[in-house]
Amino acid sequence: MPKRFTPEEYAQGVLAGNRVLLSRAITLVESTLPSDQMLAHQVMEQILPHAGKSVRVGITGVPGVGKSTFIEAFGNYLLEQHGKKLAVLAIDPTSQRTGGSILGDKTRMETLAANPSAYIRPSPAGKTLGGVARSTRESILLCEAAGFDVIFVETVGVGQSETAVHEMVDFFLLLMLAGAGDELQGIKKGIMEMADAVAITKADGANLHPATSAQAEYQGALHLFPLGTSKWSPRVTVCSAYEKTGLAPLWESVMDYVQLTQGNGYFAQRRKDQNLHWLKHSIRQSLEERFYQHPLVMAQWDRIAQQVVEGQKSPFAAAEELLNSAHA
Amino acid sequence: MPKRFTPEEYAQGVLAGNRVLLSRAITLVESTLPSDQMLAHQVMEQILPHAGKSVRVGITGVPGVGKSTFIEAFGNYLLEQHGKKLAVLAIDPTSQRTGGSILGDKTRMETLAANPSAYIRPSPAGKTLGGVARSTRESILLCEAAGFDVIFVETVGVGQSETAVHEMVDFFLLLMLAGAGDELQGIKKGIMEMADAVAITKADGANLHPATSAQAEYQGALHLFPLGTSKWSPRVTVCSAYEKTGLAPLWESVMDYVQLTQGNGYFAQRRKDQNLHWLKHSIRQSLEERFYQHPLVMAQWDRIAQQVVEGQKSPFAAAEELLNSAHA
Repeated sequence: MPKRFTPEEYAQGVLAGNRVLLSRAITLVESTLPSDQMLAHQVMEQILPHAGKSVRVGITGVPGVGKSTFIEAFGNYLLEQHGKKLAVLAIDPTSQRTGGSILGDKTRMETLAANPSAYIRPSPAGKTLGGVARSTRESILLCEAAGFDVIFVETVGVGQSETAVHEMVDFFLLLMLAGAGDELQGIKKGIMEMADAVAITKADGANLHPATSAQAEYQGALHLFPLGTSKWSPRVTVCSAYEKTGLAPLWESVMDYVQLTQGNGYFAQRRKDQNLHWLKHSIRQSLEERFYQHPLVMAQWDRIAQQVVEGQKSPFAAAEELLNSAHA
Repeated sequence: MPKRFTPEEYAQGVLAGNRVLLSRAITLVESTLPSDQMLAHQVMEQILPHAGKSVRVGITGVPGVGKSTFIEAFGNYLLEQHGKKLAVLAIDPTSQRTGGSILGDKTRMETLAANPSAYIRPSPAGKTLGGVARSTRESILLCEAAGFDVIFVETVGVGQSETAVHEMVDFFLLLMLAGAGDELQGIKKGIMEMADAVAITKADGANLHPATSAQAEYQGALHLFPLGTSKWSPRVTVCSAYEKTGLAPLWESVMDYVQLTQGNGYFAQRRKDQNLHWLKHSIRQSLEERFYQHPLVMAQWDRIAQQVVEGQKSPFAAAEELLNSAHA
């Protein structure tokens, strides 16, 4: 068992930018042990006043879109051209990767991983979406306290994790492939409308022309959709991780978004709303966990749910019945 | 106080297509009195085996799109050309309309309201979205049991009620205006992606050309979005309630959708999923209501929520704190 530090030791280490302590603190917030969680609460309490000073960018796209390669190229661009300190977190509850087996990603992000200005942390293995969301959100704050000023939160565009990521970042980037009739099918409905920017990847060689056509199409389509309260009009760009092109316009989009939304107050308001969202979300999760694990509910669930599904019982009457047995 | 009937009297009246009893039964499911609710459960239990045999169509669009006029024209078309029996329900929790003051709508739907094959029921006044959703859903079943074979559930495309309607209908129709730069802003993000069909209204006179251009644009845009599990590709049509044009192709879309999804099993599966959704949704609502009305939670909420919003306290730690005081 690794040595436990005091909350002060964790906090001071993180604030000093000590990567070992940062990793240990993230491991702490990922832990489900009650004693670790209590310690994690204390660490978070201490670092919170020092967090918040990054741009949080969510990045999603279906497998095959070249996400890791893109993040490596875009990350290195930010480090080299803008002197940024970048943390890359992953939120992927279905991931089979463990702390020791992220070789696949490490290989694809090897120059980024080797750069002292970058910090890459894979998704914790074997956790539910709720658990991953919680620890990823606290990891963002820890990385910010450790001095990282750009945070990427990556996710795979096929499940429910996109909505969770959308609720923890400032800017949501959707990676797409050109000519993606089939590839598109992998993207969940609604993701397109969450995007602040769409980047068509692999826009090089013979792919360049289809990519620019797709760009025009998507840009036209996105214009048909209403502006959100951010007043930001989503942009579509093309890029190539291989040729390292299109990265500057993309970063410009992020910066323009930040400028616009910091100016009109949306940026700060959104973060406040997100804080409240996670409070209510955690409460909901705990309430439901407690309810569905109640022995009397578990004993009746299959039978009653089946009656409801088959239309033999009203959902509202059934809910009341179950709630009464849980609270009786 | 109006006479109370027995559950059997309500059920038999509804099943016989007695409009007075149908209205009284709907009033019963709208009531928040515990004794009424118990009676309502018993009535629902009896009519459930006879419900389900309609096509449920959700209709939304921002104010000004001509929703009532459209429903009047489309409804009369279904009655006259297809011999349908149509019930029109409204879900609008912000509505100020009461049982006695639906004159605005009645006027716009006067020929429909006068037709014995149609039944129009406004949204119950002064209820929360949860309450409206619940009573609307049970009203759908009552109308089906009374022999209505097409149900329109209308909502205003500006709030959260669209998602609720989407979860209680088979087919979701979005009404839009041509050249709608500004009008579009009223539509909530995400609604477009719920639509099974988009109808551009007021496509007559000088509006016809802009409407057909908009049709092409939206059709192009919708094709960029992935197909859902229904395998249905949303259609965009133009129509004019004034000239009574474009109604046949729209109904054809509904019928094609029903044929496709009944063929591939999606139609039945979706209804089962919706039943389960409403079960879980009711449970969630009751759990949260109970939690947020707990005296110790209410006493601390403002202070703790404020700390979370301002980033002084972790949402997860705060949730735990509140849950502990509610369950202690």
